[in-house]
Amino acid sequence: MKKEKMKTASRLKIIPLGGLDEIGMNITAFEYGDSIIVVDCGLSFPDDDMLGIDLVIPDITYLRENVGKIKGFIITHGHEDHIGALPYVLKEILVPIYATRLTMGIIDRKLEEHGLNGHVRQRVVKFGQMITLDDFRIEFIKTNHSIVDAAALAIYSPAGIVVHTGDFKVDYTPVFGDAIDLQRFAELGKKGVLALMSDSTNAERPGFTPSEKTLGPTFDQIFEEHKNTRLIIATFASNVDRVQQIINSACKFGRKVVVEGRSMVNIIETATSLDCLQIPENTLIDIEQLKDYPEDRTVIIATGSQGESMAALSRMAGNNHKKISIGPNDTVIFSSHPIPGNEKAVTKVINDLLVKGADVIFQDAPHVSGHACQEEIKLIYNLVQPKYAIPVHGEYKHLKANAKLAEALGIPKERIFILSSGNVLELDMESAAVTGKVPVGDIMVDGLGVGDVGNVVLRDRQHLAENGIIIVVLALDQTSGQLTAGPDIVSRGFVYVREADELMDEARATVQFTVERCLERNIVDWGKLKSSIRDGLTDFIWKRTKRRPMILPIIMEV
Amino acid sequence: MKKEKMKTASRLKIIPLGGLDEIGMNITAFEYGDSIIVVDCGLSFPDDDMLGIDLVIPDITYLRENVGKIKGFIITHGHEDHIGALPYVLKEILVPIYATRLTMGIIDRKLEEHGLNGHVRQRVVKFGQMITLDDFRIEFIKTNHSIVDAAALAIYSPAGIVVHTGDFKVDYTPVFGDAIDLQRFAELGKKGVLALMSDSTNAERPGFTPSEKTLGPTFDQIFEEHKNTRLIIATFASNVDRVQQIINSACKFGRKVVVEGRSMVNIIETATSLDCLQIPENTLIDIEQLKDYPEDRTVIIATGSQGESMAALSRMAGNNHKKISIGPNDTVIFSSHPIPGNEKAVTKVINDLLVKGADVIFQDAPHVSGHACQEEIKLIYNLVQPKYAIPVHGEYKHLKANAKLAEALGIPKERIFILSSGNVLELDMESAAVTGKVPVGDIMVDGLGVGDVGNVVLRDRQHLAENGIIIVVLALDQTSGQLTAGPDIVSRGFVYVREADELMDEARATVQFTVERCLERNIVDWGKLKSSIRDGLTDFIWKRTKRRPMILPIIMEV
Repeated sequence: MKKEKMKTASRLKIIPLGGLDEIGMNITAFEYGDSIIVVDCGLSFPDDDMLGIDLVIPDITYLRENVGKIKGFIITHGHEDHIGALPYVLKEILVPIYATRLTMGIIDRKLEEHGLNGHVRQRVVKFGQMITLDDFRIEFIKTNHSIVDAAALAIYSPAGIVVHTGDFKVDYTPVFGDAIDLQRFAELGKKGVLALMSDSTNAERPGFTPSEKTLGPTFDQIFEEHKNTRLIIATFASNVDRVQQIINSACKFGRKVVVEGRSMVNIIETATSLDCLQIPENTLIDIEQLKDYPEDRTVIIATGSQGESMAALSRMAGNNHKKISIGPNDTVIFSSHPIPGNEKAVTKVINDLLVKGADVIFQDAPHVSGHACQEEIKLIYNLVQPKYAIPVHGEYKHLKANAKLAEALGIPKERIFILSSGNVLELDMESAAVTGKVPVGDIMVDGLGVGDVGNVVLRDRQHLAENGIIIVVLALDQTSGQLTAGPDIVSRGFVYVREADELMDEARATVQFTVERCLERNIVDWGKLKSSIRDGLTDFIWKRTKRRPMILPIIMEV
Repeated sequence: MKKEKMKTASRLKIIPLGGLDEIGMNITAFEYGDSIIVVDCGLSFPDDDMLGIDLVIPDITYLRENVGKIKGFIITHGHEDHIGALPYVLKEILVPIYATRLTMGIIDRKLEEHGLNGHVRQRVVKFGQMITLDDFRIEFIKTNHSIVDAAALAIYSPAGIVVHTGDFKVDYTPVFGDAIDLQRFAELGKKGVLALMSDSTNAERPGFTPSEKTLGPTFDQIFEEHKNTRLIIATFASNVDRVQQIINSACKFGRKVVVEGRSMVNIIETATSLDCLQIPENTLIDIEQLKDYPEDRTVIIATGSQGESMAALSRMAGNNHKKISIGPNDTVIFSSHPIPGNEKAVTKVINDLLVKGADVIFQDAPHVSGHACQEEIKLIYNLVQPKYAIPVHGEYKHLKANAKLAEALGIPKERIFILSSGNVLELDMESAAVTGKVPVGDIMVDGLGVGDVGNVVLRDRQHLAENGIIIVVLALDQTSGQLTAGPDIVSRGFVYVREADELMDEARATVQFTVERCLERNIVDWGKLKSSIRDGLTDFIWKRTKRRPMILPIIMEV
């Protein structure tokens, strides 16, 4: 609503809006004068302490307050941490979306699920193409990543050019499409680049990430060495190139392919319809047809490589899959590494599979990363030669490692910025500085509720989870103020009731005593009465059990 | 109570009793005729789904039922997963404990904490010494591990000799004491060994685990390279040799040492008093004295290398440490690798430390494992030449990897046994087979309660954690059966109340409607009334929010 504009608008503002944590939820505003463009719009998955939460989306207060300036969403690729919040954010910020073909195909499906298709302007962009949005021009540059059609961005503003790598790796021999357009990065570098925002995920790892294509021979070898068993291969649904290579091996070795897991089915449909995936006819079969083929003539490509409890592989391992049961005639291949935090879940699935007699390939898993290692990051810095370095994508330790690389390459420390969410970095060719802070945060989604679970609710859930609840109910006469019924005591999640009978009897007596003493002393204020009950019972329970259940007194007036 | 004994007692029974999971809780019964000895008595830490649980101990129903036969506990070393359940189990099975010196020192302290010292017969055993317990003789054999004084056992029974490695590695150049007594393993092998039970933890890893001593020069180098900052080194409290080497480097580089974290202080006291740790005078200083020395003249050895939220290092990283605050003049060294499941917690601590400006050494952490890798496991098999192989210690995948090694070494598959908890393996030189199953399980300890939290309570806690609770209270007149007060609705952990006002009003109306309809139809059975309320409200809430909070109707009679 602040309409007055100072003529300080000669600098570009870069504002990461991705919530309180650095992980996931990639969303960054670029602001120049009266124009804002937003790069990516991701969600993140809940931390362990966000009990009952389905997913987390960014607080977009800043965008909401500047909605008139926003020209569009520019999406680098189709992973959830880059597109997942779109359906939620678009409900408030209805501006066009720009993305490459497969990325848009995945967004399409997502909008459809939320009943939003048809309501949003979506423009498919080709690599090399330039989009003009008011003060900004945006060019999509071909990169490689663990999903097809990933793009880097060159963002042209009057203050200079910012190159944003998106999530990337350098793959000279990609499975689908072209190698990363290093020439274009070099050309931009020659022109002069204000800032490079580069993927930091693997910045701690020396060397080069191997080409996705190196896995082709690996899969062939696995198929060769396990000719007598069924094969079950778990990988990330969105890794279309991986799926392609598994299908290639399956065809070579004459196996039929079953695709299991909803997200895997979805992405394969989308990728096939856009010709990003080539499946020869008579290769795919329905899961119902599995029984018509000998086990050693089939391969199942499944979700669940991260041990996700509801995914296909976990259900097979846990005997919860309706159509597939695991036995000694199965070889299960993890074509993935566990994402930090998932190690235990993955190990549980592996153990369950081994107990069922399956052969499991998980050490030296056929997998390569989708992110650039140190030599690739250095290559991009070298080509782009930015004035400022802004490491992005990754936890703080990754950003820090990227910053160290930049410094080692000769970028002075004071020109390297590790931004926190909400930081406003103002920059031009003269100078750069963090000049302010906008509100950011985690908006939790639970069922249909968006943002109605906050810290109070989470704290209560934590308390309930660890200690359970004891509810004290009593009825007071509205005229005399005397105890008419109760106190009754009910507990949940506290202690097994039969064991606790005596404890509960004593607890009731404790409350009764407290209430009677309060009433005798004419304490009739319900707030005071409740806190006396709570204090007395908390003490009693702590002394007896060294536990602190939530105590909830409820008083009724009759 | 079954007093009749068949003369089938000529075979040895080996019965692992370590709960439902293979991890942690090492406790194994060896039974011959009327004698039982129990090797180790460990606890385990709760899984993520054991909400609010402090620790888990084994169900000892089988021992309880055979208490008269039990001759003693034989403890291999002083780690929690081998000794932690002793204080709980001794309350029912009061038999002597046999262990080496440091192991017994650690047990002493534990019994003291539980007020049990003086009540239990404890016998310190030397390596090479033989204990006779009825039909069994037990010899303690020197091994190496990440704690001093670890022992393997040779268990002599009339059915043959069982060699149990305990947790072990082969360290030819240990920091304290002797190298593993490989000659004795060989001698036993020459005599003829019935079964080898060997540590499987690192059975997936090729090669040899490096000597603990290799870390000495590494620490020296770290001290050399970080002469200008304070050093904070986090490691496992019980790794006395590690602490010794840090202290050696500290002395060499003229730094004072502060020990932080209760378990670290305890173990250092115990180890020092038993001469397992040599600390030169004027090396240790109190934490209060830190301020009297320049930062670059001090080193802090701290707990928290696994990211445990209440441990010293986590408190420092999270600004919750009263005496130590982290800044750019700190170098923090993780002398550990994250135990599977702790990766995320460790990473959080690392990120927090980096944000505060500290230098953090965590990649290529100065650490070696305490467990044997494949070549060491093969060495022991080769020396002992057992008839039967019984892989122990580790998850199923580790046991399986150990079994594969045994097979590769020529032990026939049918002589290799991967036992589940509760399995009764009967064996002698003629044959071996799993012949039965005894009850086993996880007993959960929460506060003072042992076993009073069972699956019902855990399920309730899970439900409460994910969805919260809605409590419906109403009062019925005891004579007329009519609604006298309420229904009132209170929720916790469900949804932020202000947002929910309208929702709660409608929920109340829904319940009111249900109750009135029930009363009109003369449904006065409280069970039926409650389930009508529960069903109606569950439906309403699901439709409106897609959530399933616990619904708890409470009816009072006034």
